[in-house]
Amino acid sequence: MSALQNDLILRVLRGEATERTPVWMMRQAGRYLPDYIKLREKYSFFERVQTPELATEITLQPVYQIGVDAAILFSDILVIPQAMGLEVQLIEHKGPVLPDPIKSAKDLERLHVADPHTELSYVPAAIKLIKKELNGKVPLIGFAGAPWTLLCYMVQGKGSKTFDEAKAFCYTHPELAHTLLQMITDSTIAYLKAQIEAGADVVQLFDSWGGLLSPDDFEIWSLSYMRQIVAVVKDLAPTILFAKGAWYSLSAMADTGAQGLGIDWCITPQMARKLAGEDVALQGNYDPVHLMAPPAKIAEEVTAMLNAFGPKGHIANLGHGILPGVPVDHAKIFVETVKQHKHHVI
Amino acid sequence: MSALQNDLILRVLRGEATERTPVWMMRQAGRYLPDYIKLREKYSFFERVQTPELATEITLQPVYQIGVDAAILFSDILVIPQAMGLEVQLIEHKGPVLPDPIKSAKDLERLHVADPHTELSYVPAAIKLIKKELNGKVPLIGFAGAPWTLLCYMVQGKGSKTFDEAKAFCYTHPELAHTLLQMITDSTIAYLKAQIEAGADVVQLFDSWGGLLSPDDFEIWSLSYMRQIVAVVKDLAPTILFAKGAWYSLSAMADTGAQGLGIDWCITPQMARKLAGEDVALQGNYDPVHLMAPPAKIAEEVTAMLNAFGPKGHIANLGHGILPGVPVDHAKIFVETVKQHKHHVI
Repeated sequence: MSALQNDLILRVLRGEATERTPVWMMRQAGRYLPDYIKLREKYSFFERVQTPELATEITLQPVYQIGVDAAILFSDILVIPQAMGLEVQLIEHKGPVLPDPIKSAKDLERLHVADPHTELSYVPAAIKLIKKELNGKVPLIGFAGAPWTLLCYMVQGKGSKTFDEAKAFCYTHPELAHTLLQMITDSTIAYLKAQIEAGADVVQLFDSWGGLLSPDDFEIWSLSYMRQIVAVVKDLAPTILFAKGAWYSLSAMADTGAQGLGIDWCITPQMARKLAGEDVALQGNYDPVHLMAPPAKIAEEVTAMLNAFGPKGHIANLGHGILPGVPVDHAKIFVETVKQHKHHVI
Repeated sequence: MSALQNDLILRVLRGEATERTPVWMMRQAGRYLPDYIKLREKYSFFERVQTPELATEITLQPVYQIGVDAAILFSDILVIPQAMGLEVQLIEHKGPVLPDPIKSAKDLERLHVADPHTELSYVPAAIKLIKKELNGKVPLIGFAGAPWTLLCYMVQGKGSKTFDEAKAFCYTHPELAHTLLQMITDSTIAYLKAQIEAGADVVQLFDSWGGLLSPDDFEIWSLSYMRQIVAVVKDLAPTILFAKGAWYSLSAMADTGAQGLGIDWCITPQMARKLAGEDVALQGNYDPVHLMAPPAKIAEEVTAMLNAFGPKGHIANLGHGILPGVPVDHAKIFVETVKQHKHHVI
């Protein structure tokens, strides 16, 4: 395996100074890219995810077409519930559907801790192929869903604004919920270890629905499980926690030892730094809807964001996934503005 | 009009000490109450809202059945877009649909500033009838949607997790968006003045989607318009601002002079008080999904919440509207726990 030619993100995650701020975009592989849309018309979602050659092609598209400083594996957080034994349907433009969600102790009997080397073997296979194709150009980010977010889908059975059924399940069946969260956690630890062994340079945990919880509930139902995962993986590869909306936990998340924390756009960089402390990299936090604004406006706003975060400890990114309707040129402006920015170091 | 026999909420909003913490619940009229569900089977949503006798009956149900310390007018925030000239459909279990949303300058020509004494005259009529029936038992809260939240529906045309079309409209057509927000603001000022003239003792502005905005965008697209409204109405009746998720603006919202600020469950009472300062009442912040927990657990958690807020400057409430599936007994436990709580004043 070739040495990395661009290790900006790794150096930021190690707390080192870099010559410029690195940049990538959540959901950068897919959705808004015309070459991805062509593949989507030919192959189903799980064909794209489970065929290493297709996952590789999609993963590499934004590296060559947009110029980001990292690739992120094309996959989905719901491969874990699927590998644990739950049916997952991903229908284009409709969001995920899990037709037999978890509602009782009996439902839990249908599940098992996932084995990354059998049910999920297509993921390490894809990572090996991606690393070979990248040939050291940029690092590869692996990822998984946080246990809380996966429980949300496994209990609610579909997307939701409030995930009230998933939350009510926890508050009315706490033992079952904790059993399920531990099974997801054990599956996720094995899964991320396998990703790192296959070549992932960085891993990110996505807690898309952490911000639906109160600070106390976030500790009980989400962070306590992410903490277990970080304790194992942070010494194998730099680890980024992204719990959307859970600003109130930035200090506690920094205490896990994760090398990076993702933040959304609903907090200023200054406040996020104050809450997270000085020792962790911050990743974010441009509002993805702002990529619909005119290009000159995007450049102006991204510059302001870079100045607000400052030259050290920042990985430029969106505050959530890029939206399907974003013009490719606007995504390029975002990335180019970061790459050309000169920090005024005093 | 009889003098109020229970003015706890008014006294908290005036910054006075009270013998106990007052309590009401957002969306307390409707949804989970069997007597409401019976009326829903007989009358359409807008029949219920636009018929003063029905709106009165529904408004009073939780006062007599649950024992809350305030009534809140049974209505909907979308009566303003409707009165401004936009078609609004409210279909049970489906959420609102506005089939001809605002997308262009031409669409704005279809709208006018609403007149509360013509298109909305059923609201002052209902308020007068409710006040008569209440006969001073508890205060009546009037309300309106915040301009930003109404723009979200008027542009997106339906509910959304992200309201990305509404946000993109603002970022790509800022002049049109500001024109629309000003028309909504002017309509809302006249509407709330009419509610107060008819007898509303308190008014609340609901910014359900403020928390989708960055701190800078919240100031530009939401708070600058709420500030105009508060400047007029706060001297006519105590005014509560509830911008769900917009914790980062608590200090700026307190500076508007609003007498109360609503907060959701995703912030601790201590942090909310720190951000909002000492001079404003805080309203909230029990997670409505926690009302699904066993009654003993609800009582324990509500007690902890009351102790966290302390004996002064707090109106107990949920952090968002009560959910349809909540057992009536659980709502009663919430209210009773607050009413029986003895603060340990040192």
